[in-house]
Amino acid sequence: MDSWVDGQPGDVLSLKDRGLAYGDGLFETIAVRSGQPVLLDRHLTRLVDGCARLAIATDLELVRHELLSYAAAMGEGVLKLILTRGDGLRGYAPDPAAQGRRILQGNPPAAYPATHAEHGIRLFPCNTRLSTQPLLAGLKHLNRLEQVLARAEWQDSEHAEGLMLDQAGRVVEGVYSNIFLVRDGGLITPDLKRCGVAGVMRAEILFQAESLAIPTQIADISLEQLQWADEVFVCNSVYGVWPVRACAALSWPVGPLTRKLQTIARALLDA
Amino acid sequence: MDSWVDGQPGDVLSLKDRGLAYGDGLFETIAVRSGQPVLLDRHLTRLVDGCARLAIATDLELVRHELLSYAAAMGEGVLKLILTRGDGLRGYAPDPAAQGRRILQGNPPAAYPATHAEHGIRLFPCNTRLSTQPLLAGLKHLNRLEQVLARAEWQDSEHAEGLMLDQAGRVVEGVYSNIFLVRDGGLITPDLKRCGVAGVMRAEILFQAESLAIPTQIADISLEQLQWADEVFVCNSVYGVWPVRACAALSWPVGPLTRKLQTIARALLDA
Repeated sequence: MDSWVDGQPGDVLSLKDRGLAYGDGLFETIAVRSGQPVLLDRHLTRLVDGCARLAIATDLELVRHELLSYAAAMGEGVLKLILTRGDGLRGYAPDPAAQGRRILQGNPPAAYPATHAEHGIRLFPCNTRLSTQPLLAGLKHLNRLEQVLARAEWQDSEHAEGLMLDQAGRVVEGVYSNIFLVRDGGLITPDLKRCGVAGVMRAEILFQAESLAIPTQIADISLEQLQWADEVFVCNSVYGVWPVRACAALSWPVGPLTRKLQTIARALLDA
Repeated sequence: MDSWVDGQPGDVLSLKDRGLAYGDGLFETIAVRSGQPVLLDRHLTRLVDGCARLAIATDLELVRHELLSYAAAMGEGVLKLILTRGDGLRGYAPDPAAQGRRILQGNPPAAYPATHAEHGIRLFPCNTRLSTQPLLAGLKHLNRLEQVLARAEWQDSEHAEGLMLDQAGRVVEGVYSNIFLVRDGGLITPDLKRCGVAGVMRAEILFQAESLAIPTQIADISLEQLQWADEVFVCNSVYGVWPVRACAALSWPVGPLTRKLQTIARALLDA
């Protein structure tokens, strides 16, 4: 399906766009099922938070309308929204009058091996560390060189994802996923106040866990805590939940709480 | 003058470009005088270093040839080269076979008030801190949200530049400049191993200082050291050297070593 730029079909972008010049923008990767964007409100909530923190002006109702129209035309697949600050002139100073530019791109459904969800995955232990930047932490912004470097660390198909630590060695996230630990029947997921992307599926799992009265904790997580976890899983808004079976010398079983949350995520994504 | 994309006139970019998706690329901002790119070899040296560290394939001689041709056609102004990893498919994994995409954009000469160079400038003390990322430190890559946030901190014309510190409070650079301190007849400029952009004019000034037997030091710099400097100046490859007269409550005179190096930079840029 053709991409849209500011609501019009098109496959090119102005060279003056600040998304290109500085990575000055945000994105959302949204699963589309039966013509509906999955977890749309959570995606829009994160987008609005990002626009506020980067001071990018955008018309939320217009974005919502375009996402719904585009998803309806797509049917099934993955919809990527890029929202940039629009064209720039010279230099870093943002034009306070600039309107965000909306780019919609459609892709076929992601084709991950079914075994990832069924039997779990192995994480590659990335050497690329995430830097601390509280002003950008949590946002899905366009400055993603750390993820590019981390993802380039392995080429084999044995590792479906990578594990990223921060500069102090704390466990933060996958390259394109968030991570949860299960311990004594409760969930722990890393605090993302210094770095990391606050994923939409992470938010949904925290919400579902609360509904199910599963104790949840958002905290700094050490490699030792990871080692002693009863279960480990990763998640994102496209594939749902994958059990993690191993990372380097560490290994975990696929456990019941992972399966329960995976079933919930699958129900959302198969709707 | 029209922009060029991979050697062809054009003003648009593929929406699949990884420069847009992830800021996956590098740039150089080059002064052009009498049809010649100024300090071209230094710009290319930094670009090659960036390509090696990001594993972006590029044909250096082709880049050099295009820069020379474009500059010759421009005559006077500022030439911006953006080199991205080219089109991507899905996900962060870089295609090892991808060829870098070359984008050339021409702008008229920068129109800074003459007083900046003559009487010196005031630096805005930015609250936005630079994050520590040794894998990217020194490179002029396309992930520049920290600079966008820092530059958005002031709108007045009283401040021509901003001062950026790292997370530990060390003095690192300006938003679009490098910084030098003069103390006891010698130069000190921040070590950029954790963060910051290793500017082409910074490299030239270090080289010129060595030729003149001026003692130079590349080191971590505290705010206390900044306070006790005899002179302070900032530099970049477009404007050359500006004396710094003040930053918040701190102030410095415009001194003889700043003037000497400013004259050298001006000779390069006025050639």
